[in-house]
Amino acid sequence: MRSIRVLGIDPGLTRCGIGVVDGVAGRARLVDVDVLRTSADADIGQRLLTLEQGFEAWIDKHTPDVVAVERVFSQHNVRTVMGTAQASALAIACAARRGVPVALHTPSEVKAAVTGQGRAGKDQVAFMVRRLLNAPTLSGPPDATDALALALCQLWRGAAASKVERALAGVRR
Amino acid sequence: MRSIRVLGIDPGLTRCGIGVVDGVAGRARLVDVDVLRTSADADIGQRLLTLEQGFEAWIDKHTPDVVAVERVFSQHNVRTVMGTAQASALAIACAARRGVPVALHTPSEVKAAVTGQGRAGKDQVAFMVRRLLNAPTLSGPPDATDALALALCQLWRGAAASKVERALAGVRR
Repeated sequence: MRSIRVLGIDPGLTRCGIGVVDGVAGRARLVDVDVLRTSADADIGQRLLTLEQGFEAWIDKHTPDVVAVERVFSQHNVRTVMGTAQASALAIACAARRGVPVALHTPSEVKAAVTGQGRAGKDQVAFMVRRLLNAPTLSGPPDATDALALALCQLWRGAAASKVERALAGVRR
Repeated sequence: MRSIRVLGIDPGLTRCGIGVVDGVAGRARLVDVDVLRTSADADIGQRLLTLEQGFEAWIDKHTPDVVAVERVFSQHNVRTVMGTAQASALAIACAARRGVPVALHTPSEVKAAVTGQGRAGKDQVAFMVRRLLNAPTLSGPPDATDALALALCQLWRGAAASKVERALAGVRR
């Protein structure tokens, strides 16, 4: 099975997790991870441009096969949901502008993919991300591990979707 | 008082009002207005790029002094708020990328500016926009008149803010 490179983005205006993994379902390797930050004192236009430049730099550097972004719901924390939606819009547009496919996953899909439990806590997600990527010393805020969890979720689910497609293609033949 | 050109954007994924007015507080002229649309069947990346191209074309064509965008609150209609936030992010980033100042106004600020009443209905806003711009035949969905109302709100409030600045500058001299 061909290895896939996924760039995961956990969108946020103040802290935006971004990470890259290579792999196939069940076997993945950490390539890079960071947290993009913008100052709450800066004006919204500058904050969005800073994030946009970060997304572009990461996509251009790592040339992912697919970008996985958290699907934002209005049920999120009311105080931060607008910034999350705005950051996600820039991430999706940056990928689309470069012709890179975008996949959206809900937080519970991501948690279920990496822990087997859709309501797992942040610590459990971070623990499993470290284990799945064989990166026990990976530290930093949960935004970083959440971005990697998104990328892993896409690897797992994308592979499952491909399997179904191949099976269906077999049926159709 | 120098005439100002304002581009108003009433953000939305499915229908996004966009309009340009020239003027000073209390006297304004309609330059152009339209509604950008994207299909709910298209993928989110393509929808955001379509809007972005529209925003860029309007900013480049009309070279506004300022872009006024509705400030999105999570108290909005839950079903549409994410699309509204995402469209607003693209609008703000397009203006910022071109160095055009962005002003955000809440729906009640806009309603108060054009009707004198922060809880005015859509019809009343549309009625006053037509009257203030001396454009009695202006038709189309409320997204169009809402975008013009945003632009008018910026003219009125921007002028008031400048007056305060001048007064303060006078005090400081």
